[in-house]
Amino acid sequence: MTMTAEEGAGEGEAPGALPPGSVIGILGGGQLGRMLALAAARLGLRCHIYCPDPESPAFDVAAAQTIAAYDDMAALEEFARSVDVVTYEFENVPVAAAKQLAESAPVRPGPRALAVSQDRLVEKSFMAELGIGTAAFAPVDDRASLDQAIAKTGIPGILKTRRLGYDGKGQAPIRSPDQAGDALESMLGAPAILEALVDFEREISVIGVRTVRGAIAVYDPAENVHRDGILATSAVPASIDAAVAAEARRIATEITNALDYVGAIGVELFVERDGSLLVNEIAPRVHNSGHWTEDACAVSQFENHIRAVAGWPLGPTTRHTDVVMTNLIGLDAEAWRDLAAEPDALVHLYGKREARAGRKMGHVNRLRARA
Amino acid sequence: MTMTAEEGAGEGEAPGALPPGSVIGILGGGQLGRMLALAAARLGLRCHIYCPDPESPAFDVAAAQTIAAYDDMAALEEFARSVDVVTYEFENVPVAAAKQLAESAPVRPGPRALAVSQDRLVEKSFMAELGIGTAAFAPVDDRASLDQAIAKTGIPGILKTRRLGYDGKGQAPIRSPDQAGDALESMLGAPAILEALVDFEREISVIGVRTVRGAIAVYDPAENVHRDGILATSAVPASIDAAVAAEARRIATEITNALDYVGAIGVELFVERDGSLLVNEIAPRVHNSGHWTEDACAVSQFENHIRAVAGWPLGPTTRHTDVVMTNLIGLDAEAWRDLAAEPDALVHLYGKREARAGRKMGHVNRLRARA
Repeated sequence: MTMTAEEGAGEGEAPGALPPGSVIGILGGGQLGRMLALAAARLGLRCHIYCPDPESPAFDVAAAQTIAAYDDMAALEEFARSVDVVTYEFENVPVAAAKQLAESAPVRPGPRALAVSQDRLVEKSFMAELGIGTAAFAPVDDRASLDQAIAKTGIPGILKTRRLGYDGKGQAPIRSPDQAGDALESMLGAPAILEALVDFEREISVIGVRTVRGAIAVYDPAENVHRDGILATSAVPASIDAAVAAEARRIATEITNALDYVGAIGVELFVERDGSLLVNEIAPRVHNSGHWTEDACAVSQFENHIRAVAGWPLGPTTRHTDVVMTNLIGLDAEAWRDLAAEPDALVHLYGKREARAGRKMGHVNRLRARA
Repeated sequence: MTMTAEEGAGEGEAPGALPPGSVIGILGGGQLGRMLALAAARLGLRCHIYCPDPESPAFDVAAAQTIAAYDDMAALEEFARSVDVVTYEFENVPVAAAKQLAESAPVRPGPRALAVSQDRLVEKSFMAELGIGTAAFAPVDDRASLDQAIAKTGIPGILKTRRLGYDGKGQAPIRSPDQAGDALESMLGAPAILEALVDFEREISVIGVRTVRGAIAVYDPAENVHRDGILATSAVPASIDAAVAAEARRIATEITNALDYVGAIGVELFVERDGSLLVNEIAPRVHNSGHWTEDACAVSQFENHIRAVAGWPLGPTTRHTDVVMTNLIGLDAEAWRDLAAEPDALVHLYGKREARAGRKMGHVNRLRARA
């Protein structure tokens, strides 16, 4: 257990806890911000959502709204001054914005989590330092370093830009040496990383939550299936041994401690055929693969994230039922009538006005279902 | 099962269901309106709260707000035109207001439920017509009818104004004949009802929910303890036989059918020493004694009320754990730090700014607890 400087009192007390009526500032007004705002309201905490999109789904359920760009320093400053703590629903918060905000209010999770998760090379190097397995990787800045990377990691591999936010672009498979040149060109000169392909048996994730005082809880691992690069389903319990589940929890605990993390974190892992685990990536926020916690647990990832960033102790993460979460993507949500009529299915819709292809419109948690 | 005229399609379909993005109008901005708005948001439905109090707790979590009096016919009309359905969080909605609203939008539950629950005499006569037991009662308008009432029901009894909304006033016990005159005087000339005192063993309540199409679900009975006339705790399961629980469900079902009811209803019952049940009163809305459903059931009374008034099918009312709900009244909510740290306790705070004596500030659901 790690203690931050401001905390000295005995376990069980919460000296820095924000009282009811305090304002949580949330960067980002999508479905995650919306579900965070709903969770905060349960605890008597108010939310102020900051998002450039005037049609943000989170605006409808928050006490205050700011419509401004993430690089509008004046708006960020005013926002930070009007709230008691700042959190966010996406990991690509510009570092300059985070710094601006931190001058007026605590930003949780802190800047280290953003720095690590925004850069694939930093992220994988961070895991390596902790002795946590990842796909083999090597930095790529030019043709020479690409050749060295291929020699180190082997192929097939995937060349990726180090930083995200390229709207799904910025990834190029390299299956044979002759694809290397084209792959490098598709990076458009951005710093990149070559990652070896992992021959995994299944994908799982764990949602960890850590408080200001360093207390940690980790929800049961979920087994994830992706389609077209988008999460399709998360099933709990995952089809893994207890030892693998325990190891996944241990990894999440180690990562959050090393980052002196506050809030919910999503840790995506590959389970290899021998049962060993490799971290795929981390997301310093509530995570789509944790949406099942809303209906199958005493306290959801959303409420526990809010509790953590507000300096409160965590609520019980106990799971009381098996569950399969299915994302409703694009036109999937048009089946809301049938889903609402399905026994043991809990429907969640995000209030988005337009159902574009690939857009997450909602999800459904099917209780007692087994994948 | 009762069918309303507008419904003719087969079971399972929901021809009149409001699609996601529709607006639920809610009269009343207190904690019930707030929890209804939170439940609606989960389903992608928007809420418009109508309340005279500018500091209404529900305003913070709703997409639209109207601050106006309940007798402001112009404001009511504008409100009704801006929403797809109107519901309410309190039973004393003026009949004139309900009529005004009904010209522009469906009002659910309908006017019959308001008429019955707003008048103790109508309510008890309604039960009598259904063959459902209540305390012995008789109407009282003057000294002559009071004497007749005493002869009919016997004393001790309680003289009550027929209509509510007197801010806790309007009740006078009559323990001996010489108290009759003073009791009558305290009614200030309002039409009244004399009710015999019930020597009950315990108080229970059931929350029923009925859809537009007449489908009904009833949650498990809760055992209630009142203090100073205010609900203190609701424990589930109640300490009653299965036969008594079944009878409570049957009574709630019969009442909702007879009212052609749409939405959640609270039915308060006395359990007599021989196990027979008497209806104390009904509330045509979500009910404080159903707050345990938020954390112990798949779908809460709030979501099922919203589903019903929106024309959706009901969600599962399955209870997955034992639970005791405790209201946080007045300064009770100042213990939020301790409550938040208590294992298996789920804290709900309503965001009210001022903790007045007797004011409901929040509640806590203790899971797996037995009363």
